[in-house]
Amino acid sequence: MPESNTAPESTVSESTAASPTTASEDVFDVIVIGAGPVGENVADRARAAGLTVALIESELVGGECSYWACMPSKALLRPVAALAEARAVAGSREAVTGKLDAAAVFARRDEFTSHWKDDGQAGWVDSIGAVLVRGHGRLAGPRRVEVDTPDGGVRRLAARHAVAVCTGSDALIPDLPGVAQAKPWTSRQATSGRDVERLVIVGGGVVGVEMATAWRALGAEVTLLIREAAPLPRMEPFVGEMIASSLSEAGVKVRTGVTVTGLDRPTQGGPVSVLLADGQKIEGDEVLLAVGRTPRTKHLGLETVGLETGSWLKVDDSCRVQGVDGDWLFAVGDVNHRALLTHQGKYQARIAGTVIGALARGEALDMQRWSPHVATADIDAVPQVVFTEPEVGSVGKTADEARRAGLNVRVVDYDLGQVAGASLFADGYRGRARMVVDLDRNVLLGVTFIGSGVAELVHSATVAVAGEVPIDRLWHAVPSYPTISEVWLRLLETLRG
Amino acid sequence: MPESNTAPESTVSESTAASPTTASEDVFDVIVIGAGPVGENVADRARAAGLTVALIESELVGGECSYWACMPSKALLRPVAALAEARAVAGSREAVTGKLDAAAVFARRDEFTSHWKDDGQAGWVDSIGAVLVRGHGRLAGPRRVEVDTPDGGVRRLAARHAVAVCTGSDALIPDLPGVAQAKPWTSRQATSGRDVERLVIVGGGVVGVEMATAWRALGAEVTLLIREAAPLPRMEPFVGEMIASSLSEAGVKVRTGVTVTGLDRPTQGGPVSVLLADGQKIEGDEVLLAVGRTPRTKHLGLETVGLETGSWLKVDDSCRVQGVDGDWLFAVGDVNHRALLTHQGKYQARIAGTVIGALARGEALDMQRWSPHVATADIDAVPQVVFTEPEVGSVGKTADEARRAGLNVRVVDYDLGQVAGASLFADGYRGRARMVVDLDRNVLLGVTFIGSGVAELVHSATVAVAGEVPIDRLWHAVPSYPTISEVWLRLLETLRG
Repeated sequence: MPESNTAPESTVSESTAASPTTASEDVFDVIVIGAGPVGENVADRARAAGLTVALIESELVGGECSYWACMPSKALLRPVAALAEARAVAGSREAVTGKLDAAAVFARRDEFTSHWKDDGQAGWVDSIGAVLVRGHGRLAGPRRVEVDTPDGGVRRLAARHAVAVCTGSDALIPDLPGVAQAKPWTSRQATSGRDVERLVIVGGGVVGVEMATAWRALGAEVTLLIREAAPLPRMEPFVGEMIASSLSEAGVKVRTGVTVTGLDRPTQGGPVSVLLADGQKIEGDEVLLAVGRTPRTKHLGLETVGLETGSWLKVDDSCRVQGVDGDWLFAVGDVNHRALLTHQGKYQARIAGTVIGALARGEALDMQRWSPHVATADIDAVPQVVFTEPEVGSVGKTADEARRAGLNVRVVDYDLGQVAGASLFADGYRGRARMVVDLDRNVLLGVTFIGSGVAELVHSATVAVAGEVPIDRLWHAVPSYPTISEVWLRLLETLRG
Repeated sequence: MPESNTAPESTVSESTAASPTTASEDVFDVIVIGAGPVGENVADRARAAGLTVALIESELVGGECSYWACMPSKALLRPVAALAEARAVAGSREAVTGKLDAAAVFARRDEFTSHWKDDGQAGWVDSIGAVLVRGHGRLAGPRRVEVDTPDGGVRRLAARHAVAVCTGSDALIPDLPGVAQAKPWTSRQATSGRDVERLVIVGGGVVGVEMATAWRALGAEVTLLIREAAPLPRMEPFVGEMIASSLSEAGVKVRTGVTVTGLDRPTQGGPVSVLLADGQKIEGDEVLLAVGRTPRTKHLGLETVGLETGSWLKVDDSCRVQGVDGDWLFAVGDVNHRALLTHQGKYQARIAGTVIGALARGEALDMQRWSPHVATADIDAVPQVVFTEPEVGSVGKTADEARRAGLNVRVVDYDLGQVAGASLFADGYRGRARMVVDLDRNVLLGVTFIGSGVAELVHSATVAVAGEVPIDRLWHAVPSYPTISEVWLRLLETLRG
């Protein structure tokens, strides 16, 4: 996929050449609205199934992930982590006598976003034999899409088999007094920005804690305002506690349990004030609002097919939109609100693209869990890595989620700092691991790790959870000594008592 | 386990107090000869089964791994990797203006070996209620062990249920002209040494390449002499090629296809010369011989139970020594020659300890593959991490091994540098991944990764191989974006075409 700078092997059949804007109707097998990673993957799978594909994009091909989310945020964060890890070990610590070079970090970030140009990704669309249509796509009745093209025209498209809505989500801008005037940052400015001296971040989710980590390391004064009692409230409780304390140690002012009541920036510009319910004001040069996402389904013509404009699109496990007849309308990625993560959107795209191919060939779908036609992992085995310092990785259910689901659960914790591989990795290593066991089925429901260098450890848990590997068999999956992965042995030993 | 600085929850029942050296016979349920990680784990499991245990050690409790292998070698290597990783990223690179502080590295290494004192580990033996017997243990007939104690006496022990030989292996010193006079280093001196200006290493296995990496980074001139065409010849061929080239880039003189014919060090001391078959001499201050291992079974009294002295001890899948009647003699760890790795020895110890407990209770063993009584993974799912720069991790069979086993195999390779998470991890990331697929059973036989930061990625493959997770299910194990783990998706996509 292009976001990894690779074009999969071309599956080109004859390419349907893009025609100039015209009032006549172009017919494709599949029309994909939105050319982010999710839309690209739907297009790729549909092409691999031998179908013709139009891919519509109103902004940059590659989408949020490539330019304003995953890629630039991780490009900002990786040098921070690399330096922190070198500083954490006697012997290498002494070699780190300088400080993070912010200009070099920004330059590297700009390379990873291709300087916000999409030629490479547009070329990839060409290379798979899909047709890129620039402009704003919207539904115009069943199997019909209209594109408002950059030249002011309208291009009419029709789909023989399927239309896939892959428009994703926008940052939610809460309706606060003064918000328009304050020109707040969203994740877009936070990942693409360059210099800020004082940054106030509202929201303790992944965007909030990652951007607090990055901008603090890049030299900004950062205040993190969190409504809940701790950051990352959807993860295991110990995660939020450790992240709050590590951010504080890094010099971030972490304020929990606060309610933002308004923003205030003078008409003529200058600093912004964030007003809190307790009457306090927090001043910054910029304020980042990272309080949630909203579906990009306004101006999408949903009303032309009987759906509600602006809503998340409810889908079945094959990503077919519910409430629409005829198996032609799919919603894939953030916009269906199943799992708002790039990798889960891409997973759904692989499933949906396979389903579209199967339906086009007139094949029956296999609707069992874990079949190639059924998105299962995006509910039951969702992994996520948070690139803070320490890193956080988790997959599946938290203990609380598992209990609320009525499952018969045993929770096993282990102090990662007590694992030989971890103590070798960093002096004074701090971390923790939790395993949530389904005692009835003898499999894992979820696993959480927090600690330096755990990002790549998460996939072992994802294989165990998605693979439903029995606990008795995990006992034979021997971690290499001395790696951090040996925590697996400790967790299993603790479980067995 | 103590090598990770943690004592498992104590399972103390009444402790059998150690008696002073005496001609009378002490009776234990289980006698373990050798208190390395393997012996410690056998003792721990046997204690957990409620059995009394004597644990015999002639050197330091904790064994090779704690003092002269895994721990000190990784303590030497971790600062090297941490620094290399910080240097590999624009932004952090600029902060690394100094160099590796060798004195600090050595001091840290010395901490990890507890300055070659075993009080902590001896305390752990006490804490689990096992009896530590200092001295050289040897068999003296069925279920009998004699210990040559440090005070020159002999202590006679008898085992009600089992004797476990966990004596491990020694570095193999080849019978070369001049070898005694040359006082070559083995892995012991290489991991515990302090200063050397010119080091010649003979052998391109794990010890050879890891010590070349460490000592070169610590400032030594290093020559690596390899008999084969490339280092790490038992791994996938691309591994050796990449490690040879990365070592060369780091300034190690790598010579392949060479045969060492002798060593030469003057009687009065001074530099050592390594003589090659082609007539060349390579001079160094020290020479490290890392050409293999030999079993520690001399002077073990094997002849008193009808076995051959000095041989590897052949065992069944429950680690019972073959050719000895009565289910009482076990050989666990290196000494049985199944898999010469600490973590696999510990795995066997967990199995053997469980078997000893079951037999003591008069229970039948479950001799199916993957049962709690059958070591299976130490043949079919052996992982290994090599802490070079780049790191190497593998599990299971190589493509060549799988083909030689007559399996119906498909080999899938992917360039790790093309994975977004890898390119974020390090600028100009170089690496590769290989997956060996059993086309008949639709599972993985083996996986190999080479690249920076892959050490923790290996366990995902270990879970997949040991768990025999079907390929179709692995398709649902979604890697987090953007991690290096996303190579899993690329491998599976490549497999599916």
